[in-house]
Amino acid sequence: MISKNKVKFLRCLTNKKYRLKNKKVFLEGRRLVDEALNSLVDFETIWLTKSAFENSMNAELINKIRTKKILLDEISNIDLHDLSDTENSQGIIAEIDINKFITSSLDDITNDNLLILDGISDPGNLGTIFRTAAWYNIQSIVLTSDCVDPFNLKCLRSGVGAHFYFQNIVNAKREDVIKFLGNNNYDIYCADLNGIILSDVKLKNKWAVILGSEAHGLNPDFNIYNKVTIKKHGNIESLNASVACGVILDKFVSI
Amino acid sequence: MISKNKVKFLRCLTNKKYRLKNKKVFLEGRRLVDEALNSLVDFETIWLTKSAFENSMNAELINKIRTKKILLDEISNIDLHDLSDTENSQGIIAEIDINKFITSSLDDITNDNLLILDGISDPGNLGTIFRTAAWYNIQSIVLTSDCVDPFNLKCLRSGVGAHFYFQNIVNAKREDVIKFLGNNNYDIYCADLNGIILSDVKLKNKWAVILGSEAHGLNPDFNIYNKVTIKKHGNIESLNASVACGVILDKFVSI
Repeated sequence: MISKNKVKFLRCLTNKKYRLKNKKVFLEGRRLVDEALNSLVDFETIWLTKSAFENSMNAELINKIRTKKILLDEISNIDLHDLSDTENSQGIIAEIDINKFITSSLDDITNDNLLILDGISDPGNLGTIFRTAAWYNIQSIVLTSDCVDPFNLKCLRSGVGAHFYFQNIVNAKREDVIKFLGNNNYDIYCADLNGIILSDVKLKNKWAVILGSEAHGLNPDFNIYNKVTIKKHGNIESLNASVACGVILDKFVSI
Repeated sequence: MISKNKVKFLRCLTNKKYRLKNKKVFLEGRRLVDEALNSLVDFETIWLTKSAFENSMNAELINKIRTKKILLDEISNIDLHDLSDTENSQGIIAEIDINKFITSSLDDITNDNLLILDGISDPGNLGTIFRTAAWYNIQSIVLTSDCVDPFNLKCLRSGVGAHFYFQNIVNAKREDVIKFLGNNNYDIYCADLNGIILSDVKLKNKWAVILGSEAHGLNPDFNIYNKVTIKKHGNIESLNASVACGVILDKFVSI
């Protein structure tokens, strides 16, 4: 059974400060834990409630956990309720190590294409963008300092495991991102309402896509780069950032 | 100043039953009210708090409301707080009439292309799908009976006005949708993980895209139709439904 100290520790991980200090987060729910089991995540322990252990829907997951020799333990409903901010944990939570996914050095980026997220403040949106980037096999994500913490519970939930398919999640200042892009040969495109129509974009090199904040749009510091626009057919003002991300990546990966 | 009876009435509109009975909803927030003002919505009244009236950021909006001769009134912070489920109302709410947008008759559909949503239960997701459909100028949306109510506050918020650009939002039973599609000459494609790759799709007629539930996938009743798949480049299991919707519509509207 989970110890009181561990419950206290996990509760601290709902706070960004402790997540960053300890490089640990906890995941909740069958689907998220299962996606993480399929990726390169280092698990500390996975806890199930008594009824989750007995639920036949979890048999396959429990087998997978045992095969991978990950520590499995029981958690009471009361302790789980104390930790979980959702009704959808299905009696399953896991503590994982995120040290290898986060870095603040842009020099760790060794891959081809890049997604740069500037001031995305909605955790649900950020998670969906991560999920989209993972679908299109983007390996490195750069977050400017004013983005929401990607390891907050809501972002992890909407990312459904995407976080753990990346090689790097880089937190960097805007000026350092611009310096890095200047020193490396990227075709750079910012998503914007006034730019080259997506279908007209030609790419010659590895590329970087920059998505700005939903509320405030693109930061003027990025005005030095090309802009790309998804052709609008109706009258509404804008697309959701994660939808725009999907449409742009779908095109860019196939050019 | 808003009357106690009106506050009571608006409070009732947070309940689906009363929304459907009265064919009224209330909108909150500058952006949503502004998008609705640009569309064909019939407004009853728009209320601002004293400080919202005095806020220079609202001057343009207030001008627009006056030009359109829509009734403008004041609401106290206490009454607004009582109604609003968000901190983002910015002191602005509006009562609107939704009668002309909702129908339960598929025969009202007179337009070319169609988006059919089956069992989408997350209101945020549904709103983002609406926003995406409005961007691509889809005029008719069909919701099967197990979809969440599109006029719930969260869905309205994530739709940012998209609801009011459609000619029809049709609530229908799955069997009636299938009968309707059988009687009309549509190219029908269901979004699915195992189908024709999107870039290989050829369209000859007007088309209908069917999106299934995120949690349970496509309903087996729809297995009679073609399936379309967005090419996967990474390892994650699936795309978010609204992102998939965007990628598919972006392709379909340009074929």
